[in-house]
Amino acid sequence: MTSNLDSTGRSSAAGAQDGGRQDDCAQNCNVALVGFGTVGSSVARILCERSNTHLRLTHVLNRNVARKKVDWLPSSVQWTENIDDVLSSGVDVVVEVMGGLQPTEDWIRRVLASGKSVVTANKQLIAHCGPELIALARQMKQQIQFGASVAGGVPVISGLHEGLAGDELFKICGILNGTCNYILSQIETNGVPFATALREAQKLGFAEADPTEDIDGLDARAKLAILARVGLHCDVKATSIVARSISAIDAVDFQYANQLGCTIRQISWAELRPESNTKSKGDILFAAVQPALVELSSPLARVEGSKNLVVATGTYGGETVFGGHGAGGHPTAVAVVSDILAVARARQCGTSYAAQPVEKTPAVTADFTTKHYLRFLVKDRPGIIASLATILSHCGINIDSVLQKPGCPKPHLPFLITLEECKASLVDQALQQINSLDFLVQPCLHLPIL
Amino acid sequence: MTSNLDSTGRSSAAGAQDGGRQDDCAQNCNVALVGFGTVGSSVARILCERSNTHLRLTHVLNRNVARKKVDWLPSSVQWTENIDDVLSSGVDVVVEVMGGLQPTEDWIRRVLASGKSVVTANKQLIAHCGPELIALARQMKQQIQFGASVAGGVPVISGLHEGLAGDELFKICGILNGTCNYILSQIETNGVPFATALREAQKLGFAEADPTEDIDGLDARAKLAILARVGLHCDVKATSIVARSISAIDAVDFQYANQLGCTIRQISWAELRPESNTKSKGDILFAAVQPALVELSSPLARVEGSKNLVVATGTYGGETVFGGHGAGGHPTAVAVVSDILAVARARQCGTSYAAQPVEKTPAVTADFTTKHYLRFLVKDRPGIIASLATILSHCGINIDSVLQKPGCPKPHLPFLITLEECKASLVDQALQQINSLDFLVQPCLHLPIL
Repeated sequence: MTSNLDSTGRSSAAGAQDGGRQDDCAQNCNVALVGFGTVGSSVARILCERSNTHLRLTHVLNRNVARKKVDWLPSSVQWTENIDDVLSSGVDVVVEVMGGLQPTEDWIRRVLASGKSVVTANKQLIAHCGPELIALARQMKQQIQFGASVAGGVPVISGLHEGLAGDELFKICGILNGTCNYILSQIETNGVPFATALREAQKLGFAEADPTEDIDGLDARAKLAILARVGLHCDVKATSIVARSISAIDAVDFQYANQLGCTIRQISWAELRPESNTKSKGDILFAAVQPALVELSSPLARVEGSKNLVVATGTYGGETVFGGHGAGGHPTAVAVVSDILAVARARQCGTSYAAQPVEKTPAVTADFTTKHYLRFLVKDRPGIIASLATILSHCGINIDSVLQKPGCPKPHLPFLITLEECKASLVDQALQQINSLDFLVQPCLHLPIL
Repeated sequence: MTSNLDSTGRSSAAGAQDGGRQDDCAQNCNVALVGFGTVGSSVARILCERSNTHLRLTHVLNRNVARKKVDWLPSSVQWTENIDDVLSSGVDVVVEVMGGLQPTEDWIRRVLASGKSVVTANKQLIAHCGPELIALARQMKQQIQFGASVAGGVPVISGLHEGLAGDELFKICGILNGTCNYILSQIETNGVPFATALREAQKLGFAEADPTEDIDGLDARAKLAILARVGLHCDVKATSIVARSISAIDAVDFQYANQLGCTIRQISWAELRPESNTKSKGDILFAAVQPALVELSSPLARVEGSKNLVVATGTYGGETVFGGHGAGGHPTAVAVVSDILAVARARQCGTSYAAQPVEKTPAVTADFTTKHYLRFLVKDRPGIIASLATILSHCGINIDSVLQKPGCPKPHLPFLITLEECKASLVDQALQQINSLDFLVQPCLHLPIL
């Protein structure tokens, strides 16, 4: 350790007592794994296979644990179905990769109350009651880390919290749901209908049997709420963020989007803006999870398959991009193990301090001002454009372009109107009138053009 | 602090003693700025403008400090030319943004020896004597952070060290020099010669008056050496990494590259591979900084202007991407301030521990096995291809394709041979013979196709 740079970009340079002491302490971090599904078993694999780690897996908890037992874990590992076995043990860190809100929340409270730290990949739990769990951890002088709860293996939580701590971030946007990105990519590439792409994704394990959480944006908005808290210091509830489904997107929308130099992605967006009437900064949080048109040249347009990407924008540093595998056992397990190592480091130093930025509690709105994409499916007849144009003009909305693919059947004609920049709420107003018009075969598809 | 999630993805969740104590301690981090150029004054700006920060700028040191004084810093700041004023003060963290190896190294040693921590943006210094400085910091129970030394505002050092700590990284590649990326982009976009693009870059402040460090890859290889240490745990000297200049790249090379579905970028690459004769992993470090062909679909091909990008590849998490502004006062200052905050956090907890992975000291080679791009400039005459093909075939190298743009002047004819995958050293052997052939107007340009 005398002449080698010891790979410590950040905190290992902090003078630890001495080499010997470090190693002694290092062997002293016992880990219990609660949940032995895809992520859980990947975490166990990494803990087993990685050399030079001072982390020791001592417990694995799962329902019907007998059928979960594997032969590649050391025989010293205790397999159990009972959380009390973990609570009463000498475990230092409990890793929760079980999912769900209950009994998970109760268990995590009991773990913290018993003087152990927690690492969790549970985005819904953190979005739902993270603040309370963190307060409890603080009170018990323990830690709770949740780096794996957003974007799987992409180290965006630590990136926002530490790497960009010196900046004043005001915008976070990204692709936070690999399932939706995979489905939209498939519709785009293969020209298949939404339902077919979804079935494919389910067959390949990229989508759940019940895909609602992903498709309707509920998964991504939980992640966005967490990112808004970590990066923008905004106290925002996931349920206060508008989430719109991608299920109405069709192959024809990609054709039209392409004509506009764009593609369509499920975009999670959170942006702090000063309230218009005051000079104070950050009074309104514009936030939504929705399918949107993004320019083909944007990094968001180039995210492949089930990958994730987050773009954080700061007052001083401009745009910083984090990208990688947003899901899957191994990548998510990397985030979990990184968190375990962070807990182990912090335990080592007893308590750890972090600046407490004042929380903002801004009003949350999805009323973005953008250009808009309106795709209609109509029974063709004379006067359709005139009717639509009249309503839009009465609402004070300017049409930017009208596009109609040639060769479509008259009774089932998709065509497109794009609108100049205006508030989404204004368009929604106009659509209330428009959607009652009798020539519409289905309600108008309305997407923002970002 | 009771019910709000306090933006602590990572370590703030670690239980600090209590709210009151935190705030008291928080006001206690005094910062001295050594160097008040572009980065230094940006750091001062951020420290002044950012609200809720517990960092206090107390000293600014610069040569001829009188001409540096600004009116937007608090009058309490002490301006000095004498490092002893800083050493004898109550400063907690000294920020070195002065650059150069001397007197910087001596000063940093004295700062650490006087019981203060250091934040530096000095890549050459860290690449040159980082290990010794870290050992000294450890001995003095102080810290030295260098997040700003690589890729400016892109939080890649903390990303590798903390965010991806759970993975076993084996490859790091990226675009680490914004000057080269800007120049190559300009040649590509505007079809101008190298010299013109360089002059433009100098005019716009993207290149130094003496651009050697950038153009010849010396800047990037210092950064690559740091990344290899932090991410791959390899003890590698910058001078042991081959660096090749971009100065031979011409507009015609982009035309040929495009025909191959590629572009040309200065790529920094470090990859651990098992020694071929053993099963042990990571015995050889393939590393180089060089212009290379990269596929247009690669994220490396899409890095715009002076931005930076790093792709880290791990056994478990696959590829993770970090991108953003690799230079400039404000982005670099964000990295510096993030480091100051990290030091302040760690000071708070007295000492901080980080796992000490065993250092590897692999053999370093630039003998990559890739396809190859050979661009010749010849006085045209019959038999040229035959001569070249004979030499290549004698060396056991297979030609993949021969390309010749139509319409070039016969006495100054650029044409291209691409080679099937083989070792770079084999091609170099062949080129020793080839470059003595009398029809060559200039030595062959040899680039790897990655």
